Amino acid sequence: MKLRDIVLRNDTAAGRAFNWAITLLIVYFLITLSIGTLPNLPVWAADFLNASDYVVFGLFTIEYAVRIAAAPSKRKYLFSFYGILDLVALAPFYLTVGLDLAADLDLAARLDLAAGLELEAVRVVRLFGVVQLLRLVRYSDAASRFRRALALAKEELVLVLTVAAVLLFVSSVGIYHFERNEQPEEFGSVLHSMWWAIVTLTTVGYGDVYPTTPAGKIFTGVVMVCGLAVVAVPAGIMASALSEVRAQERSQDRKTD
Amino acid sequence: MKLRDIVLRNDTAAGRAFNWAITLLIVYFLITLSIGTLPNLPVWAADFLNASDYVVFGLFTIEYAVRIAAAPSKRKYLFSFYGILDLVALAPFYLTVGLDLAADLDLAARLDLAAGLELEAVRVVRLFGVVQLLRLVRYSDAASRFRRALALAKEELVLVLTVAAVLLFVSSVGIYHFERNEQPEEFGSVLHSMWWAIVTLTTVGYGDVYPTTPAGKIFTGVVMVCGLAVVAVPAGIMASALSEVRAQERSQDRKTD
Amino acid sequence: MKLRDIVLRNDTAAGRAFNWAITLLIVYFLITLSIGTLPNLPVWAADFLNASDYVVFGLFTIEYAVRIAAAPSKRKYLFSFYGILDLVALAPFYLTVGLDLAADLDLAARLDLAAGLELEAVRVVRLFGVVQLLRLVRYSDAASRFRRALALAKEELVLVLTVAAVLLFVSSVGIYHFERNEQPEEFGSVLHSMWWAIVTLTTVGYGDVYPTTPAGKIFTGVVMVCGLAVVAVPAGIMASALSEVRAQERSQDRKTD
Amino acid sequence: MKLRDIVLRNDTAAGRAFNWAITLLIVYFLITLSIGTLPNLPVWAADFLNASDYVVFGLFTIEYAVRIAAAPSKRKYLFSFYGILDLVALAPFYLTVGLDLAADLDLAARLDLAAGLELEAVRVVRLFGVVQLLRLVRYSDAASRFRRALALAKEELVLVLTVAAVLLFVSSVGIYHFERNEQPEEFGSVLHSMWWAIVTLTTVGYGDVYPTTPAGKIFTGVVMVCGLAVVAVPAGIMASALSEVRAQERSQDRKTD
Repeated sequence: MKLRDIVLRNDTAAGRAFNWAITLLIVYFLITLSIGTLPNLPVWAADFLNASDYVVFGLFTIEYAVRIAAAPSKRKYLFSFYGILDLVALAPFYLTVGLDLAADLDLAARLDLAAGLELEAVRVVRLFGVVQLLRLVRYSDAASRFRRALALAKEELVLVLTVAAVLLFVSSVGIYHFERNEQPEEFGSVLHSMWWAIVTLTTVGYGDVYPTTPAGKIFTGVVMVCGLAVVAVPAGIMASALSEVRAQERSQDRKTD
Repeated sequence: MKLRDIVLRNDTAAGRAFNWAITLLIVYFLITLSIGTLPNLPVWAADFLNASDYVVFGLFTIEYAVRIAAAPSKRKYLFSFYGILDLVALAPFYLTVGLDLAADLDLAARLDLAAGLELEAVRVVRLFGVVQLLRLVRYSDAASRFRRALALAKEELVLVLTVAAVLLFVSSVGIYHFERNEQPEEFGSVLHSMWWAIVTLTTVGYGDVYPTTPAGKIFTGVVMVCGLAVVAVPAGIMASALSEVRAQERSQDRKTD
Repeated sequence: MKLRDIVLRNDTAAGRAFNWAITLLIVYFLITLSIGTLPNLPVWAADFLNASDYVVFGLFTIEYAVRIAAAPSKRKYLFSFYGILDLVALAPFYLTVGLDLAADLDLAARLDLAAGLELEAVRVVRLFGVVQLLRLVRYSDAASRFRRALALAKEELVLVLTVAAVLLFVSSVGIYHFERNEQPEEFGSVLHSMWWAIVTLTTVGYGDVYPTTPAGKIFTGVVMVCGLAVVAVPAGIMASALSEVRAQERSQDRKTD
Repeated sequence: MKLRDIVLRNDTAAGRAFNWAITLLIVYFLITLSIGTLPNLPVWAADFLNASDYVVFGLFTIEYAVRIAAAPSKRKYLFSFYGILDLVALAPFYLTVGLDLAADLDLAARLDLAAGLELEAVRVVRLFGVVQLLRLVRYSDAASRFRRALALAKEELVLVLTVAAVLLFVSSVGIYHFERNEQPEEFGSVLHSMWWAIVTLTTVGYGDVYPTTPAGKIFTGVVMVCGLAVVAVPAGIMASALSEVRAQERSQDRKTD
């Protein structure tokens, strides 16, 4: 069996095993990333997570090398979307290692930077490891169906999203007008009011800001009803577009037979 | 190339560029409108926004003139929906300018009006600039598909909305009955209770009002379950009506071929 | 033109006018009903609303008489669903009038009842006037389409609702287990926990009760994800069943042509 | 009529009566289970519920025996999914009885255990009676349609759920970054932030945690909009997949005719 049968294909036992191993490694990495942000971690745990990062990214680096080796055209892979993603997903780790090295070499002191700033940078950079997640979507057979459904319903989606943006803006301006005198803190400007508008239109409704004047409440009622009509439609459009794509595939299969 | 090929068509490079320019200008205007409502703006920022308004509405006025010039029948454009909208969208600015002039001429003092009232008027009028947003929807190819979907599902939508209104009213009356003794402030009348009903039925749930009596909670549970069945249906109806309209278009295309 | 052409048909100008008049009368009555519950109404307003009730129910009574007169078979109408509804919708008013008369005749004192109790009864009875709302749905052409869609998707809806009930109960038992020690007030029994469960599963989320223990939060996360999968499905099922019913109607129309 | 015609079939009067009886018994049991968790139950009520449990589980045990007797192949039933479920659903009761007996025999004292621990165990075990609920879904004719719809839309559902998981994780990491300095209690780690993320993405929005920094609010706005696009889609996919399954069934029926 050739290397590319393992790395590139999802219909062989070895290919599936390879994909599952990478998926599990990514999930494991994300769990350690999450745990690593817990406050007051004991030293042994921090040490373990650190070592775990070295092992995991060692394996990711090997994976990257194997993918290059297995690619029919190395250049094409390197500059493909997933090729770049694979590289970018490695970057946060190597950057962190570099920053750690710099700290060891006491570069901060020499460059006259605050050590705290450097630690903060390490922490932020590490969080970008989240990019690994995007690699999870690679092997889905349904992704192309979604792309076709998006293409099918593109114009409607753009229109609905435009109308949603209009509604968001009109709501913000309206509630700003009705509530700014009563609640100058929460509705101090149209930009402040947008927070309320998005929390309301998505029906999340935290309850940190809400209208208190009768006029504001009536206006909010109208906005909510319009919002329901606008905000839930895109999901429905996607679902029926997907259903159409499936129907097209079936009728094509029949013709092929 | 003639003027009307630029202004009226969306399938030429010049036409698309014109539309994009107008769209960007509207978006830019809305951002300045939002920022202009921020409290404690420094004087230079207020001055800049003021100047920006003059430039933007100068361009909008030119656009209006160009549209008149490009229209095959000037009278028809002037009294069409979009012709009136284009004019109305200019009105807030010129009204504000007029009010500013009046302030400069000290008309308020002469007419014995409070200057604060005039400033308030300027602020309110300026917010109506939001009408510009409606002009964004002009060039959408999907709008006609939505109109046809609405026509297709009109009767069902009317019925669902009637049932939703009935549910809203029955909920308000019911919760008023169950909660008015416990929470006379929040559920003081059927009208007060409607605020709770709409916040609950749209599943926003701010949490500023909620039942506290056991009977009120059981009633709310029933209302919520009914609400789910009623409130999410219109979006689904629209989505499947759109899907039908697309299917009709495809079968018509096939016949035409 | 015969009486029944006005009362029973919706495809003549007179029939539509009659229906619109009744609809407007119902809406007007509901507005007065709502306003009548406002606290601290001035005497003149209360008097006006009282007089208005006499006029409105006078008209409703005439409507009932006309409907009997216009019915092809009086007996059939009287015992039909809408015939009974028309009668029941009149009952709250005449009961209130009866109770008022009883108060005037000082029956309460003779029967040794508290006058307050009687007033309370009047208020509750009046609220049942809300039944009038149900009469609004009478003239919808889409109602039969909904009935057929319900029949088409009945089994799926029953199954989803059963699963939803199971989820509701399991959530209540689970959260009761995880949170009762931390929040004995809010999660004091499975019945108490059901309030939380329904507020969460319908995604209303008032925020009056929510888990605070880590285990309770993890459990809630799982419940919410399951809830999304279950709770939004019925609306989607109804929407696509409606779409199927429309498709069936179209193909029948084509055969008839 | 044979026993198996009653127990196994849903298309005879006796079979339906048997199923309804079992369903009602399960519902009755769940109500008593809920009431049994109320705090400060009077002794007579606790005694009644205890006796009720003995009767109910007596009947469930008889049902189990009857099902074994009626099964065409006893071995097959015993090791089938529902056979095992029927047995497991009996377990909590017999475990509780065993624990009660142990308490009567004062085993706790002999084994040197705290009596409180034993009572707690009884309570937890009793709650597992909730497993009875799963038996309610047994007789649904729509369940197989759901299974086929799930199979039809499996790939899309997996993809959407993966994207939802990615969104959940990215949201948690992002909000942790933006809010941890402002609200170290609520957003103390990525794991803490996940509670916020799931409450927000499911649009429940309790309001116990929400962003307070401008950057956090803007980030939340973007997350909510993405969330709407992702979270509501699975329900729509299921609904249209069900609609396709129904269409397939109809076209098969037509071929059979």
